[in-house]
Amino acid sequence: MIIAFSVTPLGVGESVSEYVADAVRVVRDSGLPNSTDAMFTSIEGEWDEVMAVVKAAVDAVAAKAPRVSVVLKADIRAGVTDGLTAKVAAVEERLAEN
Amino acid sequence: MIIAFSVTPLGVGESVSEYVADAVRVVRDSGLPNSTDAMFTSIEGEWDEVMAVVKAAVDAVAAKAPRVSVVLKADIRAGVTDGLTAKVAAVEERLAEN
Amino acid sequence: MIIAFSVTPLGVGESVSEYVADAVRVVRDSGLPNSTDAMFTSIEGEWDEVMAVVKAAVDAVAAKAPRVSVVLKADIRAGVTDGLTAKVAAVEERLAEN
Amino acid sequence: MIIAFSVTPLGVGESVSEYVADAVRVVRDSGLPNSTDAMFTSIEGEWDEVMAVVKAAVDAVAAKAPRVSVVLKADIRAGVTDGLTAKVAAVEERLAEN
Repeated sequence: MIIAFSVTPLGVGESVSEYVADAVRVVRDSGLPNSTDAMFTSIEGEWDEVMAVVKAAVDAVAAKAPRVSVVLKADIRAGVTDGLTAKVAAVEERLAEN
Repeated sequence: MIIAFSVTPLGVGESVSEYVADAVRVVRDSGLPNSTDAMFTSIEGEWDEVMAVVKAAVDAVAAKAPRVSVVLKADIRAGVTDGLTAKVAAVEERLAEN
Repeated sequence: MIIAFSVTPLGVGESVSEYVADAVRVVRDSGLPNSTDAMFTSIEGEWDEVMAVVKAAVDAVAAKAPRVSVVLKADIRAGVTDGLTAKVAAVEERLAEN
Repeated sequence: MIIAFSVTPLGVGESVSEYVADAVRVVRDSGLPNSTDAMFTSIEGEWDEVMAVVKAAVDAVAAKAPRVSVVLKADIRAGVTDGLTAKVAAVEERLAEN
């Protein structure tokens, strides 16, 4: 399973990079495969281990903000490993064909 | 906390109401406050109890589909109860003012 | 097409009902079929008319907030009308069967 | 504005890389700053130009699938340019601090 999630604090002003960094730190400390871009952090693993990391990341932000908004998308497909890389490679391969 | 989530099976055709019903059944059996509209099912409760229901609902769909896409949005705000009703009431009150 | 969207202002404090009401007012003034629950407002129509309403709703919030986060999910299926009602009815029918 | 979006075809089987490639091709042909990872494609620009690209990408997938699910998140903040890079740099800077 791959999930992409974002954690947005409310009630702390318009700049959120400090809080996002707190969440990303938790993800990187987890040791699970992950990547972060401008809008989401993606993590790969089994549901329980990934959701435990998401909860810890959300808690890290909720500790410093009165309200937190979380957006999450999951792609669940049995038997897929290294989807963080393989999914992009499959698309690039298609693009290269035409 | 309130979460709104959707569970979409892939690889089973374009009609998904059967699978969505499987997920909604799990949510309704949970006893947690919930509502379902055309796009999402919302549940209110603490993180662990809500996410356990989401996982069970996803598992119910994943049992019948080779791939499942989950979209979830959470609104986490300490001290809020009955947010499913209160949030809408607050908006309606504002709308009635003007 | 049905879209469910949320508009969240950042930099204006933790209470957002005033801003959500501004967005919902735009949606209701549009005349398109719509519904609002605790997490999303859903609208039904063709892409251009619906996205014009979403843009106007976002602009209404962006006029009063330095930063705005929008989350949107669309279900696009040719030939479907009154999906806001029919999709829920299809799920309820399935639930009633078992 | 930055948006991250995904386009998922239904009714065409569990493998969707062909369809995602069709959507990504439209995005890359647009000339707008963009990036694609395993879960989302992000684009930066003004609302109208970005949403025109999203619509064209969705149409490319809808041309080959009976049903399409779109998930989109937008971060709207006046005066920000090159957010695709700057947002990640701001988080990395925070992480490097501690």
